[in-house]
Amino acid sequence: MREKSVGTVKTEYFTFAKHPHELRLACGKLLGPITLAYETYGKLNKDKTNAILVEHALSGDSHAAGVYEGEKTSGWWDALIGPGKALDTEKYFVICSNVIGGCKGSTGPSSIDPKTGKPYGLDFPIITIADIVKAQTHLIDHLGIKKLLGVIGGSMGGMQVLQWVASYPERVASAIPIATAIKHSPQQIAFDEVGRQAIMADPAWCDGAYYEKLERPEKGLAVARMIGHITYMSDKSMEEKFSRRLKEKEYSFKFTADFEVEGYLRYRGDNFVKRFDANSYLYITKAMDYFDLSEGKLVPEGKHTDVRFLVIAFKSDWLYPSYQSQEIVRQLKIRGMDATYCEINSTYGHDAFLLEVEEETRLVKHFLDKTFYGYDVVKGRET
Amino acid sequence: MREKSVGTVKTEYFTFAKHPHELRLACGKLLGPITLAYETYGKLNKDKTNAILVEHALSGDSHAAGVYEGEKTSGWWDALIGPGKALDTEKYFVICSNVIGGCKGSTGPSSIDPKTGKPYGLDFPIITIADIVKAQTHLIDHLGIKKLLGVIGGSMGGMQVLQWVASYPERVASAIPIATAIKHSPQQIAFDEVGRQAIMADPAWCDGAYYEKLERPEKGLAVARMIGHITYMSDKSMEEKFSRRLKEKEYSFKFTADFEVEGYLRYRGDNFVKRFDANSYLYITKAMDYFDLSEGKLVPEGKHTDVRFLVIAFKSDWLYPSYQSQEIVRQLKIRGMDATYCEINSTYGHDAFLLEVEEETRLVKHFLDKTFYGYDVVKGRET
Repeated sequence: MREKSVGTVKTEYFTFAKHPHELRLACGKLLGPITLAYETYGKLNKDKTNAILVEHALSGDSHAAGVYEGEKTSGWWDALIGPGKALDTEKYFVICSNVIGGCKGSTGPSSIDPKTGKPYGLDFPIITIADIVKAQTHLIDHLGIKKLLGVIGGSMGGMQVLQWVASYPERVASAIPIATAIKHSPQQIAFDEVGRQAIMADPAWCDGAYYEKLERPEKGLAVARMIGHITYMSDKSMEEKFSRRLKEKEYSFKFTADFEVEGYLRYRGDNFVKRFDANSYLYITKAMDYFDLSEGKLVPEGKHTDVRFLVIAFKSDWLYPSYQSQEIVRQLKIRGMDATYCEINSTYGHDAFLLEVEEETRLVKHFLDKTFYGYDVVKGRET
Repeated sequence: MREKSVGTVKTEYFTFAKHPHELRLACGKLLGPITLAYETYGKLNKDKTNAILVEHALSGDSHAAGVYEGEKTSGWWDALIGPGKALDTEKYFVICSNVIGGCKGSTGPSSIDPKTGKPYGLDFPIITIADIVKAQTHLIDHLGIKKLLGVIGGSMGGMQVLQWVASYPERVASAIPIATAIKHSPQQIAFDEVGRQAIMADPAWCDGAYYEKLERPEKGLAVARMIGHITYMSDKSMEEKFSRRLKEKEYSFKFTADFEVEGYLRYRGDNFVKRFDANSYLYITKAMDYFDLSEGKLVPEGKHTDVRFLVIAFKSDWLYPSYQSQEIVRQLKIRGMDATYCEINSTYGHDAFLLEVEEETRLVKHFLDKTFYGYDVVKGRET
């Protein structure tokens, strides 16, 4: 079943908030025009009740499934999106868009500032997860969808899922936040901050105004990414993948990469800078750090919502430890909401949300089917 | 009791391996002359059987206790060294020396290379924990001590403790490795490697030849130190210390330090570069990564030793998780050695070895007394 793919896909672009209809951001500033790069898989049904919005993580993009013409690598969640898969494109219409602030086709700090005709750089306003989701509502409107059957995502994707419920509960039938948190802990902020410091310490960063220069802050961004990669794996998964294996037969007695794990990190760092913008890294991590739906903000008191929840965490995930997912469930239960919690016994660490395909498929497939077939998506009534 | 201090102290210097008596290192190269900066507290007894060697961690130095004349800040383990304290200077003679490769008075990459008359920089040979300990034996010889009553240290200090037993079991009566490992795991190597990459990514690093330049790789070293600080604390201790408290009343919507934890990390990073040499950071972390006394190397088969062990770990320490201390104990038990394991229920993370003073005092004091009074230090016989 899971070998099937959605096949060849193409990224599309939707532009909104054209002057004077600019988007008001949480910081108070206006942003526009805004372009969202997005992809869709499957077909929207006549009633427009089978749409599932997939939210990507920090370094993700709109290319969640399928392959681009002439290319071989499939989208970042291809294992979960396709005919017969967790997000079954034979039943559902799946949408994924690149976040604002990003660098994969949606408006971000590397986009042209209409006021200057040059890339924004640090003139791009600080955005929040609420802003990211607000922008997505325009895309959903554009597609003619009133209410999403589901919103699903891991890590920062999970924050967007929670934000959809907090901001637009009437537009979501079910929510699947995976390996995420209701707010960043100081440790999570700390890791993000060190990544930002690594970028800003790179003289090639030039206060964010590097787009028209020969050099880019690649070394700083590579260091930030290496830190990230350590936090995405678990102690155990690193042991299983690398142990203390050497790249050569013996210690080099030099500052080269002696251990395979060192080679892996350097490789990952070097590769990342080819496909990601350093300023986007700053903006998106800041949005994650600002995210805080604790203290009743996830489901404001008195605001009725019947969104069904499937909350998934992974045992070895120490970056988004399971107690944070349990806290989401606790907040939902306080408001009497329908929430199921599943902790998957994985050793992959935070990366598990990309790797534990079988377990996730079982859980998500059943949950979505129950929502779609046992539920009136538009009216929220059990049928 | 514990308010007592050893009082005013002075760092002393011992130079050995003067040409042609150079020290042969694990890499095969010769190093010399070598100076060791060291301090001693308490008095060596007539039989020279009351000496305890304290081993410092990555960023430590020989100033373990007391205060320098005219200064107020006491040594890094002052809480454990002094009259009536864990290492009771009324009974014991306590020694602490800065490791070779360091930058606090002992020979390291910032020292003058006698061959060129200039600082070594990257011409300094890669050193190992075995080399560090080998150098210490010269100091112990110089002090006229045949056998140490105890060797004690946390983190990299604990590695040196283990190395003493592996290399010179006949010269150690008891060993107290704290919050350490028999070998670095890939995760530990990974964190070190990212720190090194941060330093080497700084253009001011200049392949290690920055000593005579105006600028030093301060930004890279600060990032390395910030990463370190995250790993020294636990998720919980960060939550207790900072939570999500802001420095100002509201989000700045800028890339300044919004959260207290960000301010803390920046402060710690900036402070560290004033007192530590970036090349030393590279050399010492590499020595830690190379360290591996697994597979019977801690106590080689057939090599009789009756060193008594007290192995201490901390529950919330995720940088040197307690399973690594348990592995040390397992290796010792396989060889039928006398080893006691204590896991302290601390929330401080790896920093606990510097902070859990009461628990450590209780354990260490009793253990050392039992070794000293119930044991013939020189002959290794129970009395």
